[in-house]
Amino acid sequence: MKIRHNTIVKFAIVALVFTIFSCEKEAETVSDNKKSTSTSQQHPNLILTVQGVKDIRAQLGNIPIFDNTLKVVQEEIDAEIAAGIETPIPKDYSGGYTHVRHKRNMIVLQKAGVLYQILDDEKYAKYVKDMLMQYEEMYKTLPLHPKTRSYARGKLFWQCLNDSNWLVYVSQAYDCIYNYLSEEERNKLETNLFRPFADHISIDSPQFYQRVHNHSTWGNAAVGMIGLVMNDEELIDRALYGIKDLKLDTKEKDDDGGFLNKDGKAGFLANIEEPFSPDGYYNEGPYYQRYAMYPFLVFAEGLHNVKPELKIFEYKEGVLLKSINALLNLSDADGDFFPLNDGQKGMSYYNSALVTAVDISYHFGEQDPGLLSIATAQDRVLLDDSGLAVALGIKNRKAKPFDKKSINLSDGPNGTQGGVGILRNEDIELVFKYAAQGSSHGHYDKLSYSLFEKGEEILQDYGLARFVNIEQKGGGNYLKENKTWAKQTIAHNTLTQNETSHFNAKYEIGSQNHSVLHYFSSENENVQVASAKEVNAYPGTEMLRTMAIIKDEDFEKPYMLDIMKVVSNKANQYDFPYYFLGQVVTTNFEYKTPETLKTLGSKNGYQHLYVEGTAKTTADNTKFSWLNKGKFYSLTTVSNTNDEILFTRIGANDPAFNLRREAALMVRRKNTKNTLFVSTIEAHGSYSPVSESAVNSNSSIKELKVVVNTEDYTAIAITNVNGITKLFITANKDASKEATHTLKINDVNYTWKGGFTFQKIN
Amino acid sequence: MKIRHNTIVKFAIVALVFTIFSCEKEAETVSDNKKSTSTSQQHPNLILTVQGVKDIRAQLGNIPIFDNTLKVVQEEIDAEIAAGIETPIPKDYSGGYTHVRHKRNMIVLQKAGVLYQILDDEKYAKYVKDMLMQYEEMYKTLPLHPKTRSYARGKLFWQCLNDSNWLVYVSQAYDCIYNYLSEEERNKLETNLFRPFADHISIDSPQFYQRVHNHSTWGNAAVGMIGLVMNDEELIDRALYGIKDLKLDTKEKDDDGGFLNKDGKAGFLANIEEPFSPDGYYNEGPYYQRYAMYPFLVFAEGLHNVKPELKIFEYKEGVLLKSINALLNLSDADGDFFPLNDGQKGMSYYNSALVTAVDISYHFGEQDPGLLSIATAQDRVLLDDSGLAVALGIKNRKAKPFDKKSINLSDGPNGTQGGVGILRNEDIELVFKYAAQGSSHGHYDKLSYSLFEKGEEILQDYGLARFVNIEQKGGGNYLKENKTWAKQTIAHNTLTQNETSHFNAKYEIGSQNHSVLHYFSSENENVQVASAKEVNAYPGTEMLRTMAIIKDEDFEKPYMLDIMKVVSNKANQYDFPYYFLGQVVTTNFEYKTPETLKTLGSKNGYQHLYVEGTAKTTADNTKFSWLNKGKFYSLTTVSNTNDEILFTRIGANDPAFNLRREAALMVRRKNTKNTLFVSTIEAHGSYSPVSESAVNSNSSIKELKVVVNTEDYTAIAITNVNGITKLFITANKDASKEATHTLKINDVNYTWKGGFTFQKIN
Repeated sequence: MKIRHNTIVKFAIVALVFTIFSCEKEAETVSDNKKSTSTSQQHPNLILTVQGVKDIRAQLGNIPIFDNTLKVVQEEIDAEIAAGIETPIPKDYSGGYTHVRHKRNMIVLQKAGVLYQILDDEKYAKYVKDMLMQYEEMYKTLPLHPKTRSYARGKLFWQCLNDSNWLVYVSQAYDCIYNYLSEEERNKLETNLFRPFADHISIDSPQFYQRVHNHSTWGNAAVGMIGLVMNDEELIDRALYGIKDLKLDTKEKDDDGGFLNKDGKAGFLANIEEPFSPDGYYNEGPYYQRYAMYPFLVFAEGLHNVKPELKIFEYKEGVLLKSINALLNLSDADGDFFPLNDGQKGMSYYNSALVTAVDISYHFGEQDPGLLSIATAQDRVLLDDSGLAVALGIKNRKAKPFDKKSINLSDGPNGTQGGVGILRNEDIELVFKYAAQGSSHGHYDKLSYSLFEKGEEILQDYGLARFVNIEQKGGGNYLKENKTWAKQTIAHNTLTQNETSHFNAKYEIGSQNHSVLHYFSSENENVQVASAKEVNAYPGTEMLRTMAIIKDEDFEKPYMLDIMKVVSNKANQYDFPYYFLGQVVTTNFEYKTPETLKTLGSKNGYQHLYVEGTAKTTADNTKFSWLNKGKFYSLTTVSNTNDEILFTRIGANDPAFNLRREAALMVRRKNTKNTLFVSTIEAHGSYSPVSESAVNSNSSIKELKVVVNTEDYTAIAITNVNGITKLFITANKDASKEATHTLKINDVNYTWKGGFTFQKIN
Repeated sequence: MKIRHNTIVKFAIVALVFTIFSCEKEAETVSDNKKSTSTSQQHPNLILTVQGVKDIRAQLGNIPIFDNTLKVVQEEIDAEIAAGIETPIPKDYSGGYTHVRHKRNMIVLQKAGVLYQILDDEKYAKYVKDMLMQYEEMYKTLPLHPKTRSYARGKLFWQCLNDSNWLVYVSQAYDCIYNYLSEEERNKLETNLFRPFADHISIDSPQFYQRVHNHSTWGNAAVGMIGLVMNDEELIDRALYGIKDLKLDTKEKDDDGGFLNKDGKAGFLANIEEPFSPDGYYNEGPYYQRYAMYPFLVFAEGLHNVKPELKIFEYKEGVLLKSINALLNLSDADGDFFPLNDGQKGMSYYNSALVTAVDISYHFGEQDPGLLSIATAQDRVLLDDSGLAVALGIKNRKAKPFDKKSINLSDGPNGTQGGVGILRNEDIELVFKYAAQGSSHGHYDKLSYSLFEKGEEILQDYGLARFVNIEQKGGGNYLKENKTWAKQTIAHNTLTQNETSHFNAKYEIGSQNHSVLHYFSSENENVQVASAKEVNAYPGTEMLRTMAIIKDEDFEKPYMLDIMKVVSNKANQYDFPYYFLGQVVTTNFEYKTPETLKTLGSKNGYQHLYVEGTAKTTADNTKFSWLNKGKFYSLTTVSNTNDEILFTRIGANDPAFNLRREAALMVRRKNTKNTLFVSTIEAHGSYSPVSESAVNSNSSIKELKVVVNTEDYTAIAITNVNGITKLFITANKDASKEATHTLKINDVNYTWKGGFTFQKIN
């Protein structure tokens, strides 16, 4: 008891000293009537805290991953210091010299600031100060950026978005050297650089700032973070709640076709409210979540430190931390994010924003040891309090594997606007998208899916049509093929009716609709099912898609079963593509290949597809096998009489070679009202060019058959090459966990509880 | 001295004991008048020796890489033993069940035999015996294999080649259990299985056996190895020198279009003489050398052990061991062999034949420590005397990196039939082929090249059109597109004249010709040059190609300079393709893309190319940049007025999707007699989809200019973006190392010694 008492006393003394110290500092700095009366005026206080810096300094040399990160950053910044400061007059689009330089500077400033705090070496503070003063000198007379393409032009960059990125990072640098600067210097910077900078991206650019969008999140965070450093309540309020008393035209659109501000909501809190579902799914998908994540978390960290009373990490039932878990689960076995909506392939949890996310989630969340294994893979940590926590966790051998399981993530602010279901078994991952539109970055791909094996695509989602930051490719921005191809329905593994896209590819309509979960079941690890319905994409047509990943002892690997039930009030043409990658191995049908390649259609994405082969189905099942990266895959699909089979290849009407020349097999069914597309995809065997041995290169399925298809039930019989038949029955109406079903097939009664059953036929 | 004396005495006693032991064994086994009177009748004596087995047993548990290999093999064979023996009646082509099973059995037998020797566990010997007896039972009444496609049908397999593979392995197994078997058992096996088996692949199949070809090498080794075990001098002679007194029709051809036996040579020694150049280059290229390597080396090992008087490893100045060094140098940074001629991409020094090659080269060669680093990467060793030597070398930390340098490998039995030059600097590798035809697996690709960066293709050689051992793709055999596309000149990075292939793609002509080295220089590491001449591919047209890899301080990475000088007696159309991989980034010319894709031509490979874009040159230089696997590349080529530029894509007239849909940029120059194609290829910068940053994405070359082009000299000025100009001058006639040259350009005298000079212009 005595010891504890002593400790408390000591703590109180320390606190007292701090308070005095803090007050002294405050006395120095509060020279402006905009300043609040908050007592938390110590610096640093955003991502680093005074106590955190002490702790870090005490542990240095004893926390390997932190020490290594520090060493790398120090070498990087020392080299930059040696190279000298450059702040060129803004001129270029993304990828161009001035763009790249200013982008680089913001990172360098942030890192130099942190180095000053951790290493207590004034050369870093001086470097930050010198560069900031150069910016101050330039900025005070800087006009709008000369490039005119953006709906919201910045000053340092061609768009406000990049200016906001800059301020989010530079706020941290400023925080780190705040106490190093004289009051006069701070006034100069705040008056001529930071305040007008924050105003430009907010008050002067409401079409950018005043909305719910990842762009605005950056804007909000930028204004808020500089507000926290400057202790400027007005800016902090503007960050949290948007520009006061401003209403925008709710019908105006941005460059990407999204509404500027449909419902008038704005500010950081609205940007947490709206795009995140209660499960933490971000409506634009993981690629943009990754991008938005950094300002969400780094500003939240700052708010947590400066305004703990806001309880930002508990906001909306802790959605910010939940969203990190959702995001990590939206990555494949290699850590690459599933390229839903406008997603650039290859973006992964190795991105620096995810270092922030993982470290913050660990530190401010529940110290999930799985996060430590990802941090270990990332091989670096934040150079701040949360990075220290992670480094200590790893050092103390607390890391465990991050176990990605099957997961259903609801979409929409209240979790009622569809979602994304991920089914995982062994190395197979199925990503089934039945979400809402996904804001302006959404694709018209209701009930679409992609399939992965060990991080390699089996059936791909195309992703976006853009070479982000490669200036030679359309300035590194969205290419027109993003709209004409990547967003169109036919670019996805789902149903296209009458060669038109869902919602006629109209954002106004798409953004008002979403698919609906029918059921999701991952309790039985061997048979996991996700089922969802879409009734608005094509008015008069209902689509119910039920997808299962089945682990059957008679199959080498888990296989996918796909049942797309279509009910329409009129006859239509249905196109049902499979975007495979790799080399054709075999088919069970004869096909013709044309000598000249023509396009499949003239619009809605069809103008980008060449027809490389055509066939008519003859057998009850259409079979197709292919080889990709040393693995065999087989599609078996139930044929209708007169189904057409098309081999297509992307790349037509692509005058700047913006599209990848990748293939699909497509089933086309004409003049049909109600119908059923039933398919399996098997991953099997392997081929090694080193041993030149082909193992298990054939499908294990002998027959796929529809045995029942009523309004209430669909039953599929899957017979393998050994003649063993299994029956999969899904309930098309009441699929609740509690519902009991009985269905008689060939005089046998099948009884089960819940949405589906999978049984051997005796 | 006393100690040494003692050692000698001990050794003599041991030798005496062995001799007695050996004689006893001989007394037991020599029961047949075909047996020779050689004294080396101990078993094992092929890849294992009695002494070797003793040494291995003594070291077991103490030689990690050997122990690990042994463990893996033991687990593998134990599982096979548990699964039971299967020797199905032969029925299938490559990839089919019976083919795969018998192929598997030969490996399993060999390994089980070795395990018996090393572990001294009779269960392995019994397993080998039981399986051999099943083969004996089947073979004695076995007809020709039912599949008829081969020019030389086997019995276990559809072609004698595979039967020979089988006997090469199974001889080793028989050797290992020789002493375990009773004389009666041995007689049964030899009389009903081994002797008729050896006769079938030789005497009964002279069109397969009696020639210089990799197939025959297998046949020779098979007959020779079983001969060594059976101590059958007749078989050994047949192996070494071919079938006695047999002459074949010199004009007949095999399945691949190669002559069966043009000059009457045959037997193992002829198969060493002919295909290997004195530098160890194998005329069919590395892919087939890898395949042929195993029988060459394993039979040589057996000969070395049983008939040391033959000095097989010294034969033709040690060419067998030299060839291993050549082969390792014919691999890229990842160990993948350059796909010259009919080569399947991805084959690498991780193939088991290369484990044999590396271990034997180390053991019987000069214990090059570089080989130990490759063995370490292979992560396994032979379970024999040479594997023991390697394992001990690694254990004793003798391994050093295998340093691949620039190398010129002559082709032809006497090294006078052209060759292959490899220029390496940092991560860039240029493979320049100016060789002879390459036997029946050769391509019509005189003066062609491919270019690599760190094991990734910058400009590719297509390789073969075949899916080796994938039964669904034409039985796993050569596809017709191998002849119609892969072998044709237009499929390669070289000059095609008037849309015809070199030598009109006629093997009879191609095989009588070869290109000629002009000069090769790798002394100056910064400027390495290979230059060669071809005068026969197109009668009346001479091509002199000079290729350099230049490391210039003003460039990020070494770049390639390519000067193709063409002199003809008439006007022609010249097509000059660049088979790049990846995405188009930018061009300095305007191009049109057609809406429907048509073929570029109707024959000679042109029928397989679609035209995806067309342009006319307007600038003095044509520039083109692309992005592949996160790296940028740029081509700069000197334009003539009215050069056409074509974007092509492989895949037309490919009715079974056998070809990869890959691209090229092609320069077409019409109605031209003499001309010069001058190009640079730069590798530069990088792009990461994780950081989304594009670094150094532009070419560093401002201008490429021909300043002199006479019969004697060609001079190229390369001006970089900073305006610095360097001059590369190559001597087109006398390029000897000693020759001194002086050339006046713009009143400046340039003087140098040797084939070329590279200097800054002041």
